[in-house]
Amino acid sequence: MLLKHFLKTRAWTEVLVKPLETEDFVVQPAEEIMTPKWHLAHTSWFFENFVLKAYVPEYQEYNPVYTALFERFEARSGLYSRPTVKAIFQYRQHVSEALALFWKQLNENKALPDIMKRIELGVHLEEQHQELLLADIKFILGQQFLRPKYIDKDAPDTGWLAEQAMGWNEIPEGLYTIGHEPEGFAFDNEKGAHKVFLAAFEIADRAITNKEYLEFIEAGAYADQHLWLPEGWDWVLRNKAIGPLYWEQVEGSWQYYTLEGMMHVEPDGPLMHVNYFEAEAFARWKGARLPTEAEWEAAFQVKPDYMYSPVWEWTNSAYLPYPGYRSQAGPLGEFTGKMKNGRMVLRGGSLATPEGHWRPSYRNHLLPVRQAQFSGIRLLR
Amino acid sequence: MLLKHFLKTRAWTEVLVKPLETEDFVVQPAEEIMTPKWHLAHTSWFFENFVLKAYVPEYQEYNPVYTALFERFEARSGLYSRPTVKAIFQYRQHVSEALALFWKQLNENKALPDIMKRIELGVHLEEQHQELLLADIKFILGQQFLRPKYIDKDAPDTGWLAEQAMGWNEIPEGLYTIGHEPEGFAFDNEKGAHKVFLAAFEIADRAITNKEYLEFIEAGAYADQHLWLPEGWDWVLRNKAIGPLYWEQVEGSWQYYTLEGMMHVEPDGPLMHVNYFEAEAFARWKGARLPTEAEWEAAFQVKPDYMYSPVWEWTNSAYLPYPGYRSQAGPLGEFTGKMKNGRMVLRGGSLATPEGHWRPSYRNHLLPVRQAQFSGIRLLR
Amino acid sequence: MLLKHFLKTRAWTEVLVKPLETEDFVVQPAEEIMTPKWHLAHTSWFFENFVLKAYVPEYQEYNPVYTALFERFEARSGLYSRPTVKAIFQYRQHVSEALALFWKQLNENKALPDIMKRIELGVHLEEQHQELLLADIKFILGQQFLRPKYIDKDAPDTGWLAEQAMGWNEIPEGLYTIGHEPEGFAFDNEKGAHKVFLAAFEIADRAITNKEYLEFIEAGAYADQHLWLPEGWDWVLRNKAIGPLYWEQVEGSWQYYTLEGMMHVEPDGPLMHVNYFEAEAFARWKGARLPTEAEWEAAFQVKPDYMYSPVWEWTNSAYLPYPGYRSQAGPLGEFTGKMKNGRMVLRGGSLATPEGHWRPSYRNHLLPVRQAQFSGIRLLR
Amino acid sequence: MLLKHFLKTRAWTEVLVKPLETEDFVVQPAEEIMTPKWHLAHTSWFFENFVLKAYVPEYQEYNPVYTALFERFEARSGLYSRPTVKAIFQYRQHVSEALALFWKQLNENKALPDIMKRIELGVHLEEQHQELLLADIKFILGQQFLRPKYIDKDAPDTGWLAEQAMGWNEIPEGLYTIGHEPEGFAFDNEKGAHKVFLAAFEIADRAITNKEYLEFIEAGAYADQHLWLPEGWDWVLRNKAIGPLYWEQVEGSWQYYTLEGMMHVEPDGPLMHVNYFEAEAFARWKGARLPTEAEWEAAFQVKPDYMYSPVWEWTNSAYLPYPGYRSQAGPLGEFTGKMKNGRMVLRGGSLATPEGHWRPSYRNHLLPVRQAQFSGIRLLR
Repeated sequence: MLLKHFLKTRAWTEVLVKPLETEDFVVQPAEEIMTPKWHLAHTSWFFENFVLKAYVPEYQEYNPVYTALFERFEARSGLYSRPTVKAIFQYRQHVSEALALFWKQLNENKALPDIMKRIELGVHLEEQHQELLLADIKFILGQQFLRPKYIDKDAPDTGWLAEQAMGWNEIPEGLYTIGHEPEGFAFDNEKGAHKVFLAAFEIADRAITNKEYLEFIEAGAYADQHLWLPEGWDWVLRNKAIGPLYWEQVEGSWQYYTLEGMMHVEPDGPLMHVNYFEAEAFARWKGARLPTEAEWEAAFQVKPDYMYSPVWEWTNSAYLPYPGYRSQAGPLGEFTGKMKNGRMVLRGGSLATPEGHWRPSYRNHLLPVRQAQFSGIRLLR
Repeated sequence: MLLKHFLKTRAWTEVLVKPLETEDFVVQPAEEIMTPKWHLAHTSWFFENFVLKAYVPEYQEYNPVYTALFERFEARSGLYSRPTVKAIFQYRQHVSEALALFWKQLNENKALPDIMKRIELGVHLEEQHQELLLADIKFILGQQFLRPKYIDKDAPDTGWLAEQAMGWNEIPEGLYTIGHEPEGFAFDNEKGAHKVFLAAFEIADRAITNKEYLEFIEAGAYADQHLWLPEGWDWVLRNKAIGPLYWEQVEGSWQYYTLEGMMHVEPDGPLMHVNYFEAEAFARWKGARLPTEAEWEAAFQVKPDYMYSPVWEWTNSAYLPYPGYRSQAGPLGEFTGKMKNGRMVLRGGSLATPEGHWRPSYRNHLLPVRQAQFSGIRLLR
Repeated sequence: MLLKHFLKTRAWTEVLVKPLETEDFVVQPAEEIMTPKWHLAHTSWFFENFVLKAYVPEYQEYNPVYTALFERFEARSGLYSRPTVKAIFQYRQHVSEALALFWKQLNENKALPDIMKRIELGVHLEEQHQELLLADIKFILGQQFLRPKYIDKDAPDTGWLAEQAMGWNEIPEGLYTIGHEPEGFAFDNEKGAHKVFLAAFEIADRAITNKEYLEFIEAGAYADQHLWLPEGWDWVLRNKAIGPLYWEQVEGSWQYYTLEGMMHVEPDGPLMHVNYFEAEAFARWKGARLPTEAEWEAAFQVKPDYMYSPVWEWTNSAYLPYPGYRSQAGPLGEFTGKMKNGRMVLRGGSLATPEGHWRPSYRNHLLPVRQAQFSGIRLLR
Repeated sequence: MLLKHFLKTRAWTEVLVKPLETEDFVVQPAEEIMTPKWHLAHTSWFFENFVLKAYVPEYQEYNPVYTALFERFEARSGLYSRPTVKAIFQYRQHVSEALALFWKQLNENKALPDIMKRIELGVHLEEQHQELLLADIKFILGQQFLRPKYIDKDAPDTGWLAEQAMGWNEIPEGLYTIGHEPEGFAFDNEKGAHKVFLAAFEIADRAITNKEYLEFIEAGAYADQHLWLPEGWDWVLRNKAIGPLYWEQVEGSWQYYTLEGMMHVEPDGPLMHVNYFEAEAFARWKGARLPTEAEWEAAFQVKPDYMYSPVWEWTNSAYLPYPGYRSQAGPLGEFTGKMKNGRMVLRGGSLATPEGHWRPSYRNHLLPVRQAQFSGIRLLR
């Protein structure tokens, strides 16, 4: 079943890049955006490095420079035309085949549990990259002068519509257990379930819609320093921000770039592509606030049906290790386990999250200035 | 009694700058350092703007450009030679006298409670600036080629010595009330006392000493990327850091700049002038971690005698609003109340904190790269 | 004959990019490097904008965003994956065909002389871009981890070898006429021939070879501040320069990237890819100096056979207008005529200059830090 | 007589700083501005280092850190409050007295000619710094919010008025000798007199006035990209330039900061504080151009009475070595002789140039963006 999961995941990544032109695979229009080529290679490099090179004695490294190019996020990946896109597809196929072959001989392997764990981790990382890939593709295409479409219909960023006015769910005071309990897969940062006391609160029964956020824009929010955290206001000025990423005013009406091309802003669509500063300022302006990540997870425990979300929801929690956090030792721990400073946690998954990838304990995290992910807002009061 | 507190505080600020030369008042050797002149003026501007201009109808603004120069932290304050230092002392005296005069007529004033609150707030802000002033003076003098002394003896950064090996205090699991309860003065960010559940932990019975931190340095910490958070390692490289601020190797032995001039590093002295990245890396290297701010405050409730500290102690909590946080409305709220993004909380006060200024709920907060405050480390396991 | 020149030039540009992969057309590994795609489009845009749109009433603009993308040097051209490379080849063909068609109807056109002049100018600009294109291709391929070859043999940067030791030619004192005299094509900046008095001098009878420059490197030049102009030394430090662009020490011997891939440095090959600071420092170190551009041109008048060069030779003349310089009025003048500040003049053409493109009055000019062109050194004493 | 010149120069430097407050000596409001304290110290360091330390065996270095602080232009000199201003005056006095004492014993010294040359050079350097000091003082005071006066009347930047409309002088074609001929003092960069052939030209009989430049401003020059060199336009945008340095529009009329405080712009006063880009754009807009430095010097030979100027006049010559240029060997050559890249030459002296300091061959030179010197425009056609 893991092999099937592996093969399905590998295939799905390639489905996602089908609509691209060769040129789209190599440009990097912002330092924090990775090229599609890099995503394709990086997710293969993981299996090559941590499974094939580690456990298959006769395995020959595919190309020694690939580690330098594809091991880490690389702010200069947009400088590299070589290896070509075609070469990277060959690399993917090579790795997938080698791993499938290895799988057949795996039964007798004494390291079986460890190998399975690594393959499972790699599959989850590749799923994670599928959402990043989609966000990066949207950014790359959205930067082009002609705003090309990614697909013609059923894009992940266009389907969801709010069906009714926003309501509130009451979550009672109490001790809640937060974090992943030891069953099923989870990333290291979710582990170490622990108790958190929460006072009673009310949480919105869905994410904010475009219409609701438009009121904020039209109230002059992007020109009113008082509504923003100091660094948020700096961000507004520096970027001459007038709204969420991809929003433009075209002849007096709001449009945005979607994976289906430019469209009029859908009033009942989920607000997407706001950063933490926008989320925080909006919540305060509404007389509410953002949930902490513990509040978010507790709300899921009490009212799960209302917490599935079309967007990742910014929380008011900094990304910090849970009390019992321990990163794995060695290079794998180095690869997956380092906490990163200055990020805020997002919860809830999104329409772009691959099916089956998300869990209620999932901790997404981003620098507070980032808008390019499918990120939105849920209110708490 | 408030007037006495006011007058004493005003006087003490001036005592602190007595040892300076005129030139020391105007230079700004780093963007985040404020000039002593600015501190002197800013703390006067508060009383002029929020008390005298607000409540004394006949009060004439001392100089209309002072708001532009002294209302806010100003990254370019080191460009201004004028007004002169002498002019700022005159401004201080003018404001102090006008306020003392106003005080005499205050009894009949209907706004008395509000006025009292503002004066009280101003006094606490000035006390806060006294510690910042001392840290900035140390930085300014410490940057000079000749490393002049600030005073000859009894400097706040030289007295304390650890008397014994570090031990651990047990703090039991339980629900603790964190934050300032409504009695006595507190800044807005401490208010909104709330319950926090904590698992049992052990916390060190004193702050880390220089000797203890030297082991970390001598183990090669500043050359080992694996020990650091990614941004911490970036900081090490960018600054070619080899130890805490003010530490130098002179002919094979460690010396540091103190307010009494260059000295050999005192092994039993409190480790000072480390940033969050250094504190976090050291704690992890010791197999321990930093406390959260709730853990710190709970420990104070259980074992207060052990929690008084010669240094501000970095916690592993981001500086974020308490659940019930509300900033005051209007310009005063704007002035005092804005949360700031990306900072980490420090707890515990320091030898440079003015007497009577600190409370257990006190939340100091700094960007994680900052070393210039009197900041150190306490471990938790 | 002009049409033939036009068609041959258009075709040659496309021959030059034949060896590239699609991906190589879109990356921009340094701000001053243009993508091959941009070169292909820009040289077409010239004919579309200044000939077809200006003189063919029924001509429909190919795509209105192409002016925004391709009119000017664009520091962000590496962000654009669209239009695709294929689309740009179609654009080229469209423009070439439209111009050839227009040519047939040209005889009766009253603006014939002006139209001919513009086509001629466009052809010379495209030729100029052919050399830039080659330099940019070399830079792009040279930045790749695997250093792919551009061609297998007979690359423009590998053929020339010095046949003998450097000698000196005497150029007598006198009044020389410098600049282009009104016959044949020249760019605006060469026009305005004028007399210059020159004292007698001796000029080297060929460009410097790699072997000669290696002595400078091996004498420790890149570690000796005294040999450099202040800004040159800043450049050395900032770039950790150890030699000309593309030079590397591989296991103790010097290699360089050429259009045929990595090679051992050919001792008798022409020194290439040095910037002005390197040229100036080398000349001074040899007890000589660089020629001024007037000296260079006078030397060509006296000893033409010795002045043909495999590399553009840095002169010690700033790029400034000749006394009688007038730029053309209107948008064409704006396009071609603006002097640029802070550049130094290079003379002599190179092995990469298209045949027939160069004249003795030709003024190439570059910022003094640039190494990516085929630039070398000739000495004067 | 040299001693007298020395003593007079030393005294005059101190007269120039009399009007300053202590604080004015230490601030550095722009990276290229030196603090008055630095000027005072640097000009003393020259005599200490190149005369006293070099030739007086028993001389004790005043303070070993002064070389680090005062040898070179120092972009961070505004960080140093110590040594105090008072200490620097003591240093000046110490050096002056030691040199005067040394002078008395000089007759028997075998190195007399060399020593005399060094003292003479030092005196000329200190004179040069007197003008720089005045420009830096103007900049420092002009940056203060309250725009304090330097002096009450007879400031060097306010006296001169044009008496009549601008006319033109004809300078005939011919061979002119440019550069300093070996008699009297000159800096190295003026030496190496050489012949230059010039075509006939007409040169304005005085510098441009404020009124003449105002026409350029009011014609919309600072909003019209077409009038500027590309880098000039970048400068306009980056600095939001609306006119010369110190010019402001106050309630609809133009005022400027002078050493006597804010004043209405004097129509017949000399245009000052423009940079090369402004000078070059203005000249082109007038259908004229800037002279080359050879043209300027030739004009002085033909019509000296018309070439004395209240401002340094930007030429269209890059600052490059004369053909026969040789810098002196050793540290003194290193100190005085290095050519600097990217600068343009200014000719003519100014009202701020100390009496007797200037010669017709004098080559001032500045980066083309600089406005802070007393720099203006003379036209040529």
